[in-house]
Amino acid sequence: MGQSNLSTKTSLNKSNFEKVLISRVDSVLNAISAESRIVDEPLRYTLKTRGKCVRPILLYLTGDALGLNYKQLDNYAAALEVLHTYSLVHDDLPCMDDDDLRRGLATLHKKYNDSTAVLIGDALQTLSYQLIAEDKYFRDEIKIMIISKLTKTTGQDGMIRGQFMDLYFENNLATQEEIIEMNILKTSLLIETAMDIPLIIKGCLKQEWADLQRIIGLSFQIIDDIIDLTQPTEILGKTAKKDLLAQKKTLPLLLGIDAAKEELKNNKKDALGIISNLKLSDHPLKFYIENLFSRVK
Amino acid sequence: MGQSNLSTKTSLNKSNFEKVLISRVDSVLNAISAESRIVDEPLRYTLKTRGKCVRPILLYLTGDALGLNYKQLDNYAAALEVLHTYSLVHDDLPCMDDDDLRRGLATLHKKYNDSTAVLIGDALQTLSYQLIAEDKYFRDEIKIMIISKLTKTTGQDGMIRGQFMDLYFENNLATQEEIIEMNILKTSLLIETAMDIPLIIKGCLKQEWADLQRIIGLSFQIIDDIIDLTQPTEILGKTAKKDLLAQKKTLPLLLGIDAAKEELKNNKKDALGIISNLKLSDHPLKFYIENLFSRVK
Repeated sequence: MGQSNLSTKTSLNKSNFEKVLISRVDSVLNAISAESRIVDEPLRYTLKTRGKCVRPILLYLTGDALGLNYKQLDNYAAALEVLHTYSLVHDDLPCMDDDDLRRGLATLHKKYNDSTAVLIGDALQTLSYQLIAEDKYFRDEIKIMIISKLTKTTGQDGMIRGQFMDLYFENNLATQEEIIEMNILKTSLLIETAMDIPLIIKGCLKQEWADLQRIIGLSFQIIDDIIDLTQPTEILGKTAKKDLLAQKKTLPLLLGIDAAKEELKNNKKDALGIISNLKLSDHPLKFYIENLFSRVK
Repeated sequence: MGQSNLSTKTSLNKSNFEKVLISRVDSVLNAISAESRIVDEPLRYTLKTRGKCVRPILLYLTGDALGLNYKQLDNYAAALEVLHTYSLVHDDLPCMDDDDLRRGLATLHKKYNDSTAVLIGDALQTLSYQLIAEDKYFRDEIKIMIISKLTKTTGQDGMIRGQFMDLYFENNLATQEEIIEMNILKTSLLIETAMDIPLIIKGCLKQEWADLQRIIGLSFQIIDDIIDLTQPTEILGKTAKKDLLAQKKTLPLLLGIDAAKEELKNNKKDALGIISNLKLSDHPLKFYIENLFSRVK
């Protein structure tokens, strides 16, 4: 335990790192259960259908780049995935985005019912703080800094505000600035926080990291919005063209797909420039960011 | 700041303590806001309609009995009230208990809409952890112990499991033991945790306190269930006889009101016996517990 196995980055390479890191997240998520069957079944159903694990992978890779050991980051990586899953479960509810399909399977409220989705979403939010509070590797001072950051990121002035904007703009016009603000709040902040966690642990305050985090967070939402418009349901694992049908306000819908792709091209160049300045051109983080920019689903 | 004003219990007496303590909770809750108007309005609407503050008052009074200063407990007391409010906002949703009235006002989803109630409930849960993480009085080690306790109390094996049982028993029979287990999970645990917080802070592990906490938590639910059956909507501030109509399983419905009142009488005797053993017979905590047992709404 403890610091004995610092920096295992040599065990990762371009072809295996995603698989290795996702299997770490899976092993934490698979160990999560509830005592009662009526809670355990829907809880496991939701956690079993984990997605691409973008937030945990960014957390692990940033930690690796800073010399942290993966094992020490497991609870934080899982907490981020659980927190993200809570937001999806509630976002899919009929009174929200009303989606029947998520990650290729029936959404939780379709598989069970709405009350199950409300309660399991609530339990997942609780669980994310429990995973952090019960981590055995870092000092309580670090955990409180991370909890404080996460609550700001996801609370009434963060992700929740972004969700309110998203619903509001279904029936109202939005400027480019408003869409960018919404994207920062509902998506970018949590992605930035994934990378912030190892930075907080290491006490690293470099501006380059903050710039990189924001570029990745904003680009991720644009990529997601382009995919929603251009890919069929079978590829997406969720209902295609939902944004268009629901009159969602997204940058590709406002500016056109070509302009959005041009924006992404510039963002990618900026991100790789920073990666180079941080001397991470041979690090899996670089490959992963390149992959994100060329993601199709 | 700090420890300068330890134990202000002399400032409280039988007639003023509830007013004094509720005004402390109000001052924390009134200071809570959201940057964006579309979030701020429903957030304030919900927090403005705070209830009887049973959990904060029990927290403050237990703290006082242990020699803690109220000011140091403000964020924890508010966190408990905010957490309880999150559970009510989601519990009132149409897919849950479907209630139109709460604390004498329209429930949040009636006043706004379902998505607002889902999102504000979510934000309130987040806020409760933020209030604890940002407290300036106690060590991070204490805060992590409290967060850990709260997540266990309210998560998939605690309050959420109680809520699942509550919905399940609308369409299924329940034994007396199952109803008691449900009451512990959905109500008693959070009330016990309110009193646990000062006990954790002081490192106090006396069995008498644990017994007292359980008696109060279980009795509170029975009192609430009797009131639901016997008082009109105008007095309740919420729709009367909901339990009966929804075929909820409660102890007064299973055993009859007289048997439930007999149970309460025994519980009150036991509680006052413990209070006496703890040498708190002249403390406001005793008067408050007596009041709880004679509560009609």
